[in-house]
Amino acid sequence: MRQVAEPPAGSTAPRRYGNRPTMKDVAARAGVGLKTVSRVVNGEPGVTPDTERRVREAITALGFRRNDSARILRKGRTASVGLVLEDLADPFYGPLSRAVEEVARAHGALLINGSSAEDPEREQELVLALCARRVDGLVIIPAGDDHRYLEPELAAGVATVFVDRPAALIEADAVLSDSFGGARDGVAHLIAHGHRRIGFLGDRPRIHTAAERLRGYRAAMAGAGLPVDPSWVSLGPTDPARVRAAALAMLDGDPPVTALFAGNNRVTVTVVRVLAGRPRPVALVGFDDFELADLLSPAVTVVAQDAARLGGTAARTLFRRLETAGAATGPGTPAPEPRRVVLPTRLIVRGSGEIPPPAGA
Amino acid sequence: MRQVAEPPAGSTAPRRYGNRPTMKDVAARAGVGLKTVSRVVNGEPGVTPDTERRVREAITALGFRRNDSARILRKGRTASVGLVLEDLADPFYGPLSRAVEEVARAHGALLINGSSAEDPEREQELVLALCARRVDGLVIIPAGDDHRYLEPELAAGVATVFVDRPAALIEADAVLSDSFGGARDGVAHLIAHGHRRIGFLGDRPRIHTAAERLRGYRAAMAGAGLPVDPSWVSLGPTDPARVRAAALAMLDGDPPVTALFAGNNRVTVTVVRVLAGRPRPVALVGFDDFELADLLSPAVTVVAQDAARLGGTAARTLFRRLETAGAATGPGTPAPEPRRVVLPTRLIVRGSGEIPPPAGA
Repeated sequence: MRQVAEPPAGSTAPRRYGNRPTMKDVAARAGVGLKTVSRVVNGEPGVTPDTERRVREAITALGFRRNDSARILRKGRTASVGLVLEDLADPFYGPLSRAVEEVARAHGALLINGSSAEDPEREQELVLALCARRVDGLVIIPAGDDHRYLEPELAAGVATVFVDRPAALIEADAVLSDSFGGARDGVAHLIAHGHRRIGFLGDRPRIHTAAERLRGYRAAMAGAGLPVDPSWVSLGPTDPARVRAAALAMLDGDPPVTALFAGNNRVTVTVVRVLAGRPRPVALVGFDDFELADLLSPAVTVVAQDAARLGGTAARTLFRRLETAGAATGPGTPAPEPRRVVLPTRLIVRGSGEIPPPAGA
Repeated sequence: MRQVAEPPAGSTAPRRYGNRPTMKDVAARAGVGLKTVSRVVNGEPGVTPDTERRVREAITALGFRRNDSARILRKGRTASVGLVLEDLADPFYGPLSRAVEEVARAHGALLINGSSAEDPEREQELVLALCARRVDGLVIIPAGDDHRYLEPELAAGVATVFVDRPAALIEADAVLSDSFGGARDGVAHLIAHGHRRIGFLGDRPRIHTAAERLRGYRAAMAGAGLPVDPSWVSLGPTDPARVRAAALAMLDGDPPVTALFAGNNRVTVTVVRVLAGRPRPVALVGFDDFELADLLSPAVTVVAQDAARLGGTAARTLFRRLETAGAATGPGTPAPEPRRVVLPTRLIVRGSGEIPPPAGA
């Protein structure tokens, strides 16, 4: 347990997080000048090993952490964190982005966004551009499946938290929804209402959430002893034409599916349109809640993620990580282990998911 | 009319915009070295007035423009433009942002976003932070009503285009929707369907679009010789509680309004919810189209803006401006006059706006 010393009376350092020891306290305890402490803390040369050891001992004894806000203010610029989205026009990211922004704001930091447009190269280009522009940390909704390009940035102290989807091939904090459990529960709900032939319409299979939701679908079907015909599963881009064709193929199959599970809000909205043009009602459960879902006829039963909580949790994790990174830990002190937080989903029953299969189906 | 010379045979400069004269061409014509041309173009010292004059004459004769993409690539960083939104969670900005991003991408530039959260101070902080991070240009949806803080940045060559709302107290390019005409036409549509008591629910009056749409409402009412009772107009924040209370006050007024005009998509969505809970149908026209508006009962008649075209036009204006700023114009050459582009809106008739007033109303 790190001990936090009381600050000296009359200390008036600007923007300090709580009552923390200052560099001045460290300098006094180690018997060195302020510049020497600064050199040790910032990893600059010009300090003898013996002096560095004394400074590090004082840092440990006092529980000193570098005050990044003050450091940034001294440099005359605002703290900032970057948020890399995958699609600027997907409403799911609206509340997520706003939650990240609110946390950043509460920490006196600006939020800078960018979009990968679901292109791994674009993601890398954007992340590195934000790093080159000296963001203090990053929240990433990844498009790529290899994040080793981030290793030099992580080593240089850029805090990084992945949200919605985990990092690949590197260890990093991640805040996710329970895509597997949510999809399994949503499909089980359809099964409980009598459906045996259920279609799954999802995003591209290389996307982590799409793969997890498909796994949840298969688990629910297997759990009920139901076979899955290959024609009942369609994964791919979420553009309306692709989704429409896939949905119609399942609805007009021989035998047809009697219910559909839509893998995300982009898919659900297209399926709602397809079903609005069909004479017979078809059951539907969608992953993600969406605006006006409750005012449609029938209102749409969904597996809701808490997008704002995902964003807020990721941002708070990032700022904790930034504080830890700002702590004057020696090169031999490992950073805290990356954590994975999985948030629960919630089934919202509204009508479309409770439509029974047609008699005799 | 600026003359563009044919490039010399065998010229292979990377990433050139079309067939343009190069610095080499300018150097050859002026009879000076490449470095001298570079100094003149970049405003660096060390060139005699006579040599500078010769270089400028060659630049004018050839129609040379500095290739900013190449310059940026030489500096080893990616070109980038900033987009300052006012609300990350308003779906209106999704297609607008994506259109800006697509144009930026076509120009080999990254797009970096930020949100002012409708706070003028935050807007200024964000704009200046993006400038400090060396964006090449800015597309701004302004929250503030005084943009003189941008003058030093504009003088330093940061190209800026305002979109959705114009700049205040400075001259700058702006791409707007016809808020006045759109609202006037939407209200006239309600009047044409027999309504005489029409409520207007809008955003805060200091927001340019809100004020323009209110002006359109008043123009339509005046044009039909209809009085406007003060209780029929409510402007303020678009949070659901405020909008709901304002709508209910008008619907339960004595006499009640028989139709509502909603000033933007955030307001419309709340009004749709309010009307869904009322026993008697009430006519509604909303400014802005929104997802699933056509699948509601009744489907919602809207005055649609083309958000993607707004964003795309703004971004193309920005890149044209960047090219102009990159042109080797002398200090005495004025930049082209700022332009204001106003895009038309489109009334989409779907059902809610064609509901007649109740008999005897």
